[in-house]
Amino acid sequence: MARKASLSGFPEWLPGERLVELHVLDTLRRIFELHGFSSVETRAVETVGQLLRKGEIDKEVYGLSRLQGDEPATAEDPNGLALHFDLTVPFARYVVENAGHLNFPFRRYQMQKVWRGERPQDGRFREFTQADIDVVGDGALPFKYDVELALVIAEALSALPIGDFKLRVNNRKLAEGFYRGLGLDDTAGVLRSIDKLEKVGPARVKELLREELGATGEQADAALALAAIRTEDMSFVDQVRALGVQDELLEQGLDELSQVVSMAVRRAPGRVVADLSIARGLDYYTGTVYETMLVGHEQLGSICSGGRYESLASKGSRTFPGVGLSIGVSRLVSRLLAEGTAVASRSVPTAVYVTLANDDAWSEAQDVAAQLRSRGISAEVAASAEKFGKQIKFADRRGIPFVWFTGSDGAHEVKDIRSGEQIPADPASWAPPAEDLAPRIVAN
Amino acid sequence: MARKASLSGFPEWLPGERLVELHVLDTLRRIFELHGFSSVETRAVETVGQLLRKGEIDKEVYGLSRLQGDEPATAEDPNGLALHFDLTVPFARYVVENAGHLNFPFRRYQMQKVWRGERPQDGRFREFTQADIDVVGDGALPFKYDVELALVIAEALSALPIGDFKLRVNNRKLAEGFYRGLGLDDTAGVLRSIDKLEKVGPARVKELLREELGATGEQADAALALAAIRTEDMSFVDQVRALGVQDELLEQGLDELSQVVSMAVRRAPGRVVADLSIARGLDYYTGTVYETMLVGHEQLGSICSGGRYESLASKGSRTFPGVGLSIGVSRLVSRLLAEGTAVASRSVPTAVYVTLANDDAWSEAQDVAAQLRSRGISAEVAASAEKFGKQIKFADRRGIPFVWFTGSDGAHEVKDIRSGEQIPADPASWAPPAEDLAPRIVAN
Repeated sequence: MARKASLSGFPEWLPGERLVELHVLDTLRRIFELHGFSSVETRAVETVGQLLRKGEIDKEVYGLSRLQGDEPATAEDPNGLALHFDLTVPFARYVVENAGHLNFPFRRYQMQKVWRGERPQDGRFREFTQADIDVVGDGALPFKYDVELALVIAEALSALPIGDFKLRVNNRKLAEGFYRGLGLDDTAGVLRSIDKLEKVGPARVKELLREELGATGEQADAALALAAIRTEDMSFVDQVRALGVQDELLEQGLDELSQVVSMAVRRAPGRVVADLSIARGLDYYTGTVYETMLVGHEQLGSICSGGRYESLASKGSRTFPGVGLSIGVSRLVSRLLAEGTAVASRSVPTAVYVTLANDDAWSEAQDVAAQLRSRGISAEVAASAEKFGKQIKFADRRGIPFVWFTGSDGAHEVKDIRSGEQIPADPASWAPPAEDLAPRIVAN
Repeated sequence: MARKASLSGFPEWLPGERLVELHVLDTLRRIFELHGFSSVETRAVETVGQLLRKGEIDKEVYGLSRLQGDEPATAEDPNGLALHFDLTVPFARYVVENAGHLNFPFRRYQMQKVWRGERPQDGRFREFTQADIDVVGDGALPFKYDVELALVIAEALSALPIGDFKLRVNNRKLAEGFYRGLGLDDTAGVLRSIDKLEKVGPARVKELLREELGATGEQADAALALAAIRTEDMSFVDQVRALGVQDELLEQGLDELSQVVSMAVRRAPGRVVADLSIARGLDYYTGTVYETMLVGHEQLGSICSGGRYESLASKGSRTFPGVGLSIGVSRLVSRLLAEGTAVASRSVPTAVYVTLANDDAWSEAQDVAAQLRSRGISAEVAASAEKFGKQIKFADRRGIPFVWFTGSDGAHEVKDIRSGEQIPADPASWAPPAEDLAPRIVAN
């Protein structure tokens, strides 16, 4: 970030920086809507009971209490209020509450702030924006959606000025079936150990598998061999088979992952990798899992993660399976801004600054501006008739590319401040070049 | 609201309702940007000290504390964290913190959620969205901005499907100068009493003025006579003068209000009223004050209020005067939804549902969808090759107007579900009628 946040972990952007963030949000919205996802917003506030429903929560939750009055919310009071820490838990509640009003499979996107009281560090904030997409079924949800969501996200991320990325895909069934086939029955435990691979390295993971899960050297080596498989094509299938493990769940996982990767090879070449080390240990996924790295910025962590839940939510005996991904918008935007890889061509929407020859000309100047605006050209009118030089300087300082002059004879001229070129112009028809109409986001 | 919120005071919308809200937000953004306002977002969280800085606060503030650990925020600890209750206080802080990076006069719009722990009632929520515009100067800010903001807001509200409204304008200087000229020196006290006019009626206000402020019967009558003036043209000036009060500040206020009203008569006929009863007693305005009523829904209260602050913020001896207005988006939207005065033509973005003749056709169906999307047409592909009747029914239930078929010979046809008409179509060139391209908001 260019400036230090005045409250650690709570970033704020200058107007030019905000344009980069808006560009990211607008682009994601456009792609999601083109793919038929509906916009949903949930309240920022949930009950503590709702947030802690899944049991062990590794996110720090902010409770609420009115300064005048209330007892503060605590983890012990399920009716207390707290800020949501992600968009999945609130969406699950929304689906259950509104099931009678929704058509399933229900496709929604949701772009909102979330809060976590964690220690702030690079790329980790206490208040940040996420952009989620999910498809949720009623009772059942075809696997095809796991394939589709990988393609939608690859398309959405490709439309952002973020450079190259890799969407890494794995499948919990594949991994769990493999461990089971090996004779390691605490598959969740193995997943948790494998999840540490990037942090502590294979030697340490092997120790963990042997010490904590009682794995033999051969079992540990096989689990590590599986996690070492990473291919951009279908060759991962043969590599897994070469490890010689037989299991029904493994076969199902292999088939599912094959469907995702084979379609991605065809429809999003170079964007998707089968990466058998992806575990996402602490989340509640039951099949496909996704993670996304910015190439060259792997230390930033995943900028977009998700997966398949067999039961995103339930209502009595009715369950709602889902598959979805969540983009860390603030993490992405803060990186774009810090590296200067995306900048706004100007920081104001204004394309034309309409000057005043004298203070009585304000309403006619507004007429000029209104004609421009009616054709989608952003325009401001000077508030007082200072010397033209001063009015031009004001526009220049704000980055407005054009200034407009109306003579006492009613003749109009427009000046490009950058080139100095000044030409006669008609407010009913003149338009700036397309690239000057609105601020553009330029990738560096 | 159609449904009861599951947490009182925290409204949530169904996808079709959300489209109405999005339409309101998108429209406001478009108008604000056409007038040169930059988007700014501030964090939702402020320090308690910042929020209570102006002293007496009549809003209930939500303090934050982590469920695991922290002492809860209290009114006594200025470093505690709390949720903002409006967008003015955070914006003032933002201006002071970033003054070195902003160009003044700085024009910004800000559309965000705010929180107030008040008792929920019709049109009053605990979590709601506001849309603010302000212009802020460094040291000085020409009065012309007070005129401009009235016009921008009148244009913005006119673009919404909310029916007729009246922007009521008054001027604190006019009122205070008048009271002073009458010999009533506790002008703030008089304003507070006048502010109760709509609630308790003139007889009770007269009593209050006599009992609490020691006004004579004549003084109280004159103050009430001033507050009774309401004109859509410049005749308020003569009506004020007819009351025979002389005061310099009164003259200044009359001149300022005349500037706003005379320009509004010309540029926004029928939208703006000089209403000399508007006091906005508890806010810190120093000149122009604005309030907006929906015609026929006056009991809803003001849907857009604001005014001029001589000092929105200060930094040492440097002051930042401002003028701005805040639109109560949630209050407006909840009314539109409750009355059904604005509805979405469909609840999904999808225009075309691409069916599958068999499961192997999924990738070719995605090719069709991609061609449509590349021309801005929202399209979804079926997840499994059920019977066509079932696929059509699925699209129909979700409100998708068109279904696409690709024969085994590669021939394409598209069917309008509503009319039943089915025609040959080329995915590279076919487009739905403009009114079916995206969901539209229809005013009833």
